[in-house]
Amino acid sequence: MADQIPDQIPSMAALEPKSKVQDYNYPPKPLAKLDADIRVTYTGVCATDHHMIDNDWGFSRYPLVPGHEVVGRVIGIGPDVKGLEVGDIVGLGALAQACGECEYCIEGIDNLCLKRKFTYFENTIDETGEHVHHGGFSAYLRTDSRYLFKIPEGYEEKYVGPLMCGGLTVAAPLYEFAGQSWDLKGKRVGIVGIGGLGHMAIQFAEKMGAETYAVSRGTSKRKFCKALGVSGFIDSSSSADMSAIAGKLHYLLFCVSGGSIDINHYVGLMRPYGVLHFVGVPDKVENFNLMPLIFSRLTLSSSPIGASNQMRAMLEFAAKNDIKPIIEEFTHTTANEALQKVRDGSIRFRAVLKNDLI
Amino acid sequence: MADQIPDQIPSMAALEPKSKVQDYNYPPKPLAKLDADIRVTYTGVCATDHHMIDNDWGFSRYPLVPGHEVVGRVIGIGPDVKGLEVGDIVGLGALAQACGECEYCIEGIDNLCLKRKFTYFENTIDETGEHVHHGGFSAYLRTDSRYLFKIPEGYEEKYVGPLMCGGLTVAAPLYEFAGQSWDLKGKRVGIVGIGGLGHMAIQFAEKMGAETYAVSRGTSKRKFCKALGVSGFIDSSSSADMSAIAGKLHYLLFCVSGGSIDINHYVGLMRPYGVLHFVGVPDKVENFNLMPLIFSRLTLSSSPIGASNQMRAMLEFAAKNDIKPIIEEFTHTTANEALQKVRDGSIRFRAVLKNDLI
Repeated sequence: MADQIPDQIPSMAALEPKSKVQDYNYPPKPLAKLDADIRVTYTGVCATDHHMIDNDWGFSRYPLVPGHEVVGRVIGIGPDVKGLEVGDIVGLGALAQACGECEYCIEGIDNLCLKRKFTYFENTIDETGEHVHHGGFSAYLRTDSRYLFKIPEGYEEKYVGPLMCGGLTVAAPLYEFAGQSWDLKGKRVGIVGIGGLGHMAIQFAEKMGAETYAVSRGTSKRKFCKALGVSGFIDSSSSADMSAIAGKLHYLLFCVSGGSIDINHYVGLMRPYGVLHFVGVPDKVENFNLMPLIFSRLTLSSSPIGASNQMRAMLEFAAKNDIKPIIEEFTHTTANEALQKVRDGSIRFRAVLKNDLI
Repeated sequence: MADQIPDQIPSMAALEPKSKVQDYNYPPKPLAKLDADIRVTYTGVCATDHHMIDNDWGFSRYPLVPGHEVVGRVIGIGPDVKGLEVGDIVGLGALAQACGECEYCIEGIDNLCLKRKFTYFENTIDETGEHVHHGGFSAYLRTDSRYLFKIPEGYEEKYVGPLMCGGLTVAAPLYEFAGQSWDLKGKRVGIVGIGGLGHMAIQFAEKMGAETYAVSRGTSKRKFCKALGVSGFIDSSSSADMSAIAGKLHYLLFCVSGGSIDINHYVGLMRPYGVLHFVGVPDKVENFNLMPLIFSRLTLSSSPIGASNQMRAMLEFAAKNDIKPIIEEFTHTTANEALQKVRDGSIRFRAVLKNDLI
């Protein structure tokens, strides 16, 4: 019997702020002309998921089905879908829809479309109306096919999820720094924070040919980073380590979210015209001052995920270069265990749920 | 009788912090192979000059002869000087020397050379030894010819000074934003702070073809800015004005030094991928937070003056497009009046001293 989307989609949902996720069924939206139906195979768990469950940013809606690092199999398509077929393995990331018509979409920066819809933050819109969009903690999803990305053949499905948000988030700014290419030869790149994002960033930077430095507080991750192939490990609490690369880095990618940061602590690492780029956003920036930036003509920037064309380029590059997140596997029904490890920071390094709801 | 550098060079010097400048004679350094002698015709007065006189940054040395916006006539050259002849009109800016050999000098970013010497902040070095370098409040200067820039024919000497520091400072980042070109057609550029720097920045942006917006507190400078040709004047204290260009600007150049700033107040003006660039550095940045930057993928940067190749390009572009600072003329012997107007902010818009010491 052909797989098809059921009348009630099993999922794991938070019913109120700070609650555990629990069984929840919901009906699929009507099939729009550009929709595709997928059976979820895996979904990654991102820090954003627990922040959204907890309503940390004040705009969560309940029941809330998290998950924006989704991989699945296409089991049905609307009449106008192009480039996808039943049976394709596809990924869905944090972006579920953009307008496709505005100047940003046309420029290829659809992640900055003012009408963009995040996967489970906002309602998507099509000719069938406006609908709540749920995330990958579902057994199935019906979603706009233009934001489903084909996964390169041979890339193991269980590793796909973390690429769809975390992987794109770290790869897109590196790709831009390389002039929309994957060539960072001759560049010295530092990665601050060796966690879910940072351990993928190291792999991208390395495979792009950069001389890559891991920057982490203490030495507990030194061995791990060396095994990932870094040229150097910098204990950010060691003035000797910090002095050793003073003035050397072309690019420093901050992958730590939350907490507070003193950017001045890192400015000295940068070469003139260096870029300090944030994909993890600290809650607080201490003692910020422009003077240290001016004398070396430094740039500070920050980016949200990446654009569709960068997603396609990233998936291809990751598959070709065997870039893989290090994952711990759970299932949809054990999602609360995964969420707990993401919350307390003990996850090494990305949690992935295998769909066991069907 | 041919003009030649005298045994004692007349100048105006501050003999101690916060003092007025007064007559001061000093002997020229020995002529090095790459030195040129110039008779100063005019020198501009920059805010930096009064900060240095007052030792606001703690590294002033006395007697201090200010002035790093200098124009003069070549009256003698060392044996190895290339590209300059006696009689040439040349400018000297904030940079008196760079090593010429390091990776930054070779890359053409000599303003970031780690061995750079600012015109009257540091000692210059050559085969005759290490010497105190004095500024343009002198009647004559003996200085490294590699940092003397030929002034395009026909450009009036009295306007040159302010280009040498202020003009370069605002033009270099615009030139970089335009991809090392002078073409900003299709870009919307805001200039914050309409003073000595800002009124030159408006002219550069306009002549580069940008749709240019002046951003100023209150409306007192509206008429003036309109006369300079801006496409729009934005009163930064008016929420209606600010809303009118929300999300529109590709580039925002901050030309205000000192005081405190809330960058978040300006973030909403920026288009995705917009750049907020500081050439004026506030003393304090209030409530700085990266979150407003991330959602529009914004960049914050800051730059010191510009490189030699940018200086040459800027002078040529300014001359060709009749870009001129608006000046108030004083003389070397009335320098204290000029300094007072720069200090109290009443100068409109750059003070220039005509050399009356000879």
